[in-house]
Amino acid sequence: MEITNVTEYDAIAKAKLPKMVYDYYASGAEDQWTLQENRNAFARILFRPRILIDVNKIDMATTVLGFKISMPIMVAPTAFQKMAHPDGEYATARAASAAGTIMTLSSWATSSVEEVASTGPGIRFFQLYVYKNRKVVEQLVRRAEKAGFKAIALTVDTPRLGRRESDIKNRFTLPPNLTLKNFEGLDLGKMDEANDSGLASYVAGQIDRTLSWKDIQWLQTITNMPILVKGVLTGEDARIAIQAGAAGIIVSNHGARQLDYVPATISALEEVVKATQGRVPVFLDGGVRRGTDVFKALALGASGIFIGRPVVFALAAEGEAGVKKVLQMLRDEFELTMALSGCRSLSEITRNHIVTEWDTPRHLPRL
Amino acid sequence: MEITNVTEYDAIAKAKLPKMVYDYYASGAEDQWTLQENRNAFARILFRPRILIDVNKIDMATTVLGFKISMPIMVAPTAFQKMAHPDGEYATARAASAAGTIMTLSSWATSSVEEVASTGPGIRFFQLYVYKNRKVVEQLVRRAEKAGFKAIALTVDTPRLGRRESDIKNRFTLPPNLTLKNFEGLDLGKMDEANDSGLASYVAGQIDRTLSWKDIQWLQTITNMPILVKGVLTGEDARIAIQAGAAGIIVSNHGARQLDYVPATISALEEVVKATQGRVPVFLDGGVRRGTDVFKALALGASGIFIGRPVVFALAAEGEAGVKKVLQMLRDEFELTMALSGCRSLSEITRNHIVTEWDTPRHLPRL
Amino acid sequence: MEITNVTEYDAIAKAKLPKMVYDYYASGAEDQWTLQENRNAFARILFRPRILIDVNKIDMATTVLGFKISMPIMVAPTAFQKMAHPDGEYATARAASAAGTIMTLSSWATSSVEEVASTGPGIRFFQLYVYKNRKVVEQLVRRAEKAGFKAIALTVDTPRLGRRESDIKNRFTLPPNLTLKNFEGLDLGKMDEANDSGLASYVAGQIDRTLSWKDIQWLQTITNMPILVKGVLTGEDARIAIQAGAAGIIVSNHGARQLDYVPATISALEEVVKATQGRVPVFLDGGVRRGTDVFKALALGASGIFIGRPVVFALAAEGEAGVKKVLQMLRDEFELTMALSGCRSLSEITRNHIVTEWDTPRHLPRL
Amino acid sequence: MEITNVTEYDAIAKAKLPKMVYDYYASGAEDQWTLQENRNAFARILFRPRILIDVNKIDMATTVLGFKISMPIMVAPTAFQKMAHPDGEYATARAASAAGTIMTLSSWATSSVEEVASTGPGIRFFQLYVYKNRKVVEQLVRRAEKAGFKAIALTVDTPRLGRRESDIKNRFTLPPNLTLKNFEGLDLGKMDEANDSGLASYVAGQIDRTLSWKDIQWLQTITNMPILVKGVLTGEDARIAIQAGAAGIIVSNHGARQLDYVPATISALEEVVKATQGRVPVFLDGGVRRGTDVFKALALGASGIFIGRPVVFALAAEGEAGVKKVLQMLRDEFELTMALSGCRSLSEITRNHIVTEWDTPRHLPRL
Repeated sequence: MEITNVTEYDAIAKAKLPKMVYDYYASGAEDQWTLQENRNAFARILFRPRILIDVNKIDMATTVLGFKISMPIMVAPTAFQKMAHPDGEYATARAASAAGTIMTLSSWATSSVEEVASTGPGIRFFQLYVYKNRKVVEQLVRRAEKAGFKAIALTVDTPRLGRRESDIKNRFTLPPNLTLKNFEGLDLGKMDEANDSGLASYVAGQIDRTLSWKDIQWLQTITNMPILVKGVLTGEDARIAIQAGAAGIIVSNHGARQLDYVPATISALEEVVKATQGRVPVFLDGGVRRGTDVFKALALGASGIFIGRPVVFALAAEGEAGVKKVLQMLRDEFELTMALSGCRSLSEITRNHIVTEWDTPRHLPRL
Repeated sequence: MEITNVTEYDAIAKAKLPKMVYDYYASGAEDQWTLQENRNAFARILFRPRILIDVNKIDMATTVLGFKISMPIMVAPTAFQKMAHPDGEYATARAASAAGTIMTLSSWATSSVEEVASTGPGIRFFQLYVYKNRKVVEQLVRRAEKAGFKAIALTVDTPRLGRRESDIKNRFTLPPNLTLKNFEGLDLGKMDEANDSGLASYVAGQIDRTLSWKDIQWLQTITNMPILVKGVLTGEDARIAIQAGAAGIIVSNHGARQLDYVPATISALEEVVKATQGRVPVFLDGGVRRGTDVFKALALGASGIFIGRPVVFALAAEGEAGVKKVLQMLRDEFELTMALSGCRSLSEITRNHIVTEWDTPRHLPRL
Repeated sequence: MEITNVTEYDAIAKAKLPKMVYDYYASGAEDQWTLQENRNAFARILFRPRILIDVNKIDMATTVLGFKISMPIMVAPTAFQKMAHPDGEYATARAASAAGTIMTLSSWATSSVEEVASTGPGIRFFQLYVYKNRKVVEQLVRRAEKAGFKAIALTVDTPRLGRRESDIKNRFTLPPNLTLKNFEGLDLGKMDEANDSGLASYVAGQIDRTLSWKDIQWLQTITNMPILVKGVLTGEDARIAIQAGAAGIIVSNHGARQLDYVPATISALEEVVKATQGRVPVFLDGGVRRGTDVFKALALGASGIFIGRPVVFALAAEGEAGVKKVLQMLRDEFELTMALSGCRSLSEITRNHIVTEWDTPRHLPRL
Repeated sequence: MEITNVTEYDAIAKAKLPKMVYDYYASGAEDQWTLQENRNAFARILFRPRILIDVNKIDMATTVLGFKISMPIMVAPTAFQKMAHPDGEYATARAASAAGTIMTLSSWATSSVEEVASTGPGIRFFQLYVYKNRKVVEQLVRRAEKAGFKAIALTVDTPRLGRRESDIKNRFTLPPNLTLKNFEGLDLGKMDEANDSGLASYVAGQIDRTLSWKDIQWLQTITNMPILVKGVLTGEDARIAIQAGAAGIIVSNHGARQLDYVPATISALEEVVKATQGRVPVFLDGGVRRGTDVFKALALGASGIFIGRPVVFALAAEGEAGVKKVLQMLRDEFELTMALSGCRSLSEITRNHIVTEWDTPRHLPRL
C-alpha cells in the first residue's frame, strides 16, 4: 500500500527495528505527556484560508543564516543513525542535499563530519553538547568547521539526560558494531559506566552540568560559525540568548525527551518569537508531521522547522529513499497548504492565516 | 430495522458500495481532523428553548435568491452520483423537487444539466469550477443557464485538489462506465494523466490555479445567473466577495476535503455573517446531520444549509426513496426543533435561542 | 453484592425488563447528547468544603409550597410505572411517603389519583399535560384536587413529543394489560393511531400544540392548587412564568427526552434562579444520581430536586423496597455531603460551597 | 523488569494483596472522580524551564517546622500498614529515616508510637483524629509526644467517614491478627459494630462529629507539639486555621476518600497559599507520583508534599526496600526536574517556572 504521509513510516520502523532501538528513537521522558502534546497542540491551531488569490506559482524557498534552501523544512539532529539503517547519516545527508535543504548532524552520530561532508555538497549544521573537557569541545567544533559545516546547533536543555524509562528497562546500549565517530581519537577522560541507561555511560556522563550563558561567549571565541541555541522555551531565555550572541534560536523540547510536562514547542513558539522582536530568526522542532504543521509554525513567527523522528523512521524503513520521500511529502503538503491558504511565498504567511486557542474569538470585542 | 436518522444511511452505504467508492465520498483531507470537527462543533452549540408559545403551525418556507422553497435545507453538489446508484443525479433531482427544495448539480456530475432538467420542474443551481480554458467555462455556464439552472455555486476553495489519502491508496478512478456528462463534446485540452489520484487525471488537473477575484467580475459578464461564492471561511473574504458582486456566500470547507485543520463551518459562520451585515444571504454546508444542526446554523445567521454526504449515502442505500427519506427526516426534525424552541417561522429563530462556547456565560458581567 | 449507589439499579433493570420497556425509560431524544450531559455537567461542579464546624446534627428538612418534607429530594413524574413493576405507582407512593417526601404522579400513570391516594397519607403533586380538549383537562385537575393532590406540575416543554429513536425502532406501545388509569371514563376524542411511536398514538397526539402563557391564567381559574411550571431553561421564561402566576419553577429538560442539545439542567439552573430573584422557589430535575448532585443544585439556588429514572429502575429491580432504598441512599449521601461541607441545615448551603466552570478562578482579579 | 517509576508498584501490590486490602488502599469516595482528578490536575500544569544555568549542584534540603530534612518529600499517614506487609510501619519508619525525611504515623497504625520510635532516630509526626472521648485524645497525644514525635497532623476533613463503596461491598474489616496498636489499653467506650464498613465499627464511629475550631485551642493546651491542620481546601479556612494557632496547613482531600468532587489538591493549593500570606508553611498531599509533581507543588507555594499510596503499594510489593526505592525514585526525579528547570535550590523554584490553566496566556495583555 502506497505511503501517503510521514507518520506511516512509524509503524514500519517499529516492525523492522529491534525493540531496544525503536524504543530509543520513539520514547519521550517519563510519562511521555509532552511527546503526545507536541502532536496534539498542532491540532488545536486552525487555519483562516484566504480564497481567490492566484496561487499558480508557490515559492517555498528561504534563506537560513544566509544560506538559500528550497523550503523551510530542515533535518534535526538525531543520534546513532546507523542504528536505524546501515547507511546511517550518509543516507540522510544525501537525501537532505537532494531536497535542497539543511541537515543537522548529531554530535552523537555514527558517521564523522568528514564522512558526511564526503557525500557531496550540502549545507550542514553541527549539533553540539558542551562537555566538561573543553578541549574535546574545541576539537569537535574545529573539526566540523573544517569539514564545511556552516553553524553550530548548541543543545542547551540537557545539563543532565532526561529519564526515558524504556531505555532504562531495555538497558539501552549502542550496538557494539557502532561508535560515536566524531569522538574517535579524542580523549574523553574516564567514561562513567555506572549510569543507568547504557547511553549515559558513553558520553552523556561527560556533558558539562555547569554549562551557563558565559560558555556561549567562550564558544564564539573558538569558531566563526554562527550559534543556534537549541532548547529555548521561554521569552526570558530568548532575550538572554540574543544578548549572549546567539545567531538564532531553536524552540525545542528535545523531542519531549528531556523534561516531561513542558509545553508543546508550537505552544511555546509565539512567546519566544515576540521576545526576539525579529532580531534573530526563530526555528522550531518537535512534533512536525504534516505540511499544515510547517505552515502553522511559520504563521506563528518561525523562520523554519526541523524534523527528527520522521527522518529516522523513514531511514529505518527505506534508507535514503525513505528520507527523500519524507522530505518530498512534507514539501508537497506544505505547498498545497500554502496554495489552499492563498499564500504564494513564505512572506505572505501571516498570523491572520491561523487562529489559536489563546486568541480572542474574532467576533468578540478585542481586549 | 426502521431508519430513524440520516446518519444511519452511512453504514448501509458502506456495506453496499465498493470500498474505493465509499472511501471517495466518506473521506476528508489528510488527518480528517476537520471532517470530525464539522460534526463535533455542532454538539458544542446548545439551545435556549422558549416555552408556552403556540407552535401549532410551523412555517419552514423561505426564499433563496428570490426562489420560494419549502424549507432551508438544500442539496449540496456531490460528484459522480451514478457511482452511488444507477439513477444518480436523476434520483437526487426528483427527490429534491418532491421536497420542494433546491438541488445543486456538481459540474462533475454523471448526468448532464439537460438530463437533470428533464426530470421535471425544480429549482437547481450549478456548481462550477473555473478551468484554465475559459471557453469550456463559458459553454458549461451557458448550457446550465439554458437548461434552466437558476444560480452558479462557484467553488473557490479548490485551486488545487485536497489530499484525500484513501483516494491515493485506492488509486481512485471513475468507474469506466461513467463519464462527466457535462464535459461531453467540450474540448478540455490534454488531460494530465500523471496526477496521483485518478480523479485529478480527469478534470481536476484543468482547474485554473490562477483563479482570483477579477474572475468573478468576468463570470458576471457571461451569465445573468446570480453567483454564490462557495468556500468562504473568513470575514475578510466575505466582504471582498460582496464587493466582487457575489449574490450570496456559502460558508464551506468542501466537506473537509480540501484544507485539513480549517474550523468547522458552523464555527466560522458567525464571523462571515457579521462581515456581510445582511447585504447578501449566507448559507452553510458541512456536517449537517440533524434538524437541530439546521436550527443552529439559522440562529447564527445562515439563510439556509446544504447537505452533501447524507444525500449520497441515502442514494447508495435506497436511490430516490432514500434521498426523499433524508430530506423528510431532516424536515421533520427541523420542524420539531422549531416547535420545541418556540419558533413558528424562520424569522422567529434568533441568536438568543442558542448559546455557543464563545459566548460570555449569561449570568456573568458582559464585557 | 450489596447495592451501594442508585446508578447500580440501572443495570439490574436493564437485565429484568423487556428491551422495549427499558429503552422507553432509559432513552433520551435523538443523539442523546443532553442525556449524557445531564450527568457530565454535575461532575464539572466542585465543592469548597468548610472544615471544623460542629456537624453532629444535620437537618435536611425543608418546606415545599408550604408542605414540610424530610429532605429536598422528591419523586419526579415518570409514566406507566406498572410497566416497570406490577405494583407500579402504588409502590412509589408508599416509598415516597415512608421517606417523608413528595411524589409527583404522572398524568400518564397506570394508577389513578384515587388509587395512589388510597396508599395512605402523603404529599403528592399531579403532573399535567394540557390537551386540546379543555374539558378533559378540567376533569383531570378536579379529580386530582379531590384526591388530595397538593399542586400541579404543568409540563410546558412538550407541545410535541420528542423523538426517542428506540421507541420508533421498537414500535413502542403500552403493554395491552395496562392503561392510562386517569383517563378511564374521560372522552379524549378520536385517538390518533397513526403516529410513529406507539405512545403518541395514545394521548400524546391530543396534547395541545397551541398551549401558551394565557393558558396558565386559565388553569388558575379551575383549581386552587399552586402551579409549578416544569420545563423552564431560560431566565426570560422564568420571569414570564412568575408574571403568569406560577407558584414555582422546575428547571427541567424532561429527562433529555424532548429537545436534544439543550444544556444540562444544572447548567441552566443559576440563570433561572437569578431571574426569579427569590420571588418563587426553583426546583430541578435531570441527572441527579448522588447526594453530591443534590447539594450542588441547592448551592446554585434550587429549593429541591426531583429524581426520575433512579426511581423507575429501582422499582423494576426491587419494587417498593427498591424505591425506598434509592430514597434512603440519596438521603444518606446528601447528609454526608452536608456534614463534610460543614453545613448543618439547608440554609447554610451557599454559593461559596461550590465552584463552577463559569466562575472566575478565585485567586484571579474578579472582573 | 526494572521498576522505573512509583506508579508501577500499584499493579504489583494489586497482584499481591487480597482484593479487600488492595481495594481499601486504592479506592476513593463514591464515583472516585477526585481520585482521578488528583492525578489529572498535575498534568495540566506545565513547566517554563530556564536554560544555561549551572546546575551542577542541586540542593533539595529544607526545614519543616524547624526540622532539617533531605528533601521536601515526606511520608503521609496511611492506616493499617501491617495489612500491606508484615513489617508494616516499622519498614516505613526505617525507609523514611534512611531517606532523611519525615514520616507521619497514622493514629490507626498497626504499630504503636513506641514501636515506631524504636526503629531508630527520625523525625516523625503523629496523625490525630479527635474522638468524642477527649481522655483518649489526651493519652494518644501525650504518648506520641513522649515517644519523640515532633508534631500533630490533625485530620479535620473527617467528621464522618467518606463512603468508599468497595469497602461496603467487601464488608471491609481489619484482618483479625491486626489491631490499632495505639489504642491498646485505652478505654474507647462501646465500639459501635453496626456501621456498614467494618473499619467504622472499630474507631471511626468514635470520631467526634462536633469537632470545631475551638478544639484546636484546646489541643494546644495539652501538647507543645506544633499542630498541622490536615484537610484544608479553601482560603477562608486557611485564614481561620492560622488565627486558631495552626503551625502549618496540609492542603489535602484525604486521598480523595472523603468528599468526592472536591478539587484536586494541586488545584486548591494556590488559593490556600495566597490566603496564608507566608505566615505559616503550607504542605500538600494527594496524587503525587512524579518528581515533576513535587516541583509543581513547590512552584505554587507549597513548602513540601506528603505521599501516601505510593508508600503503601511499595510496602506491599517489597517491604522496606520498596519504600526506600519509592523515596529514592521521587528524589532522583525531583532533582532532575530542578536541574532541567534551572533551579539549584528550593528557594530558586518560582511561580514563573510553571504555567497553569488559570494563568492568562503570557503573550496576551494581562488584565
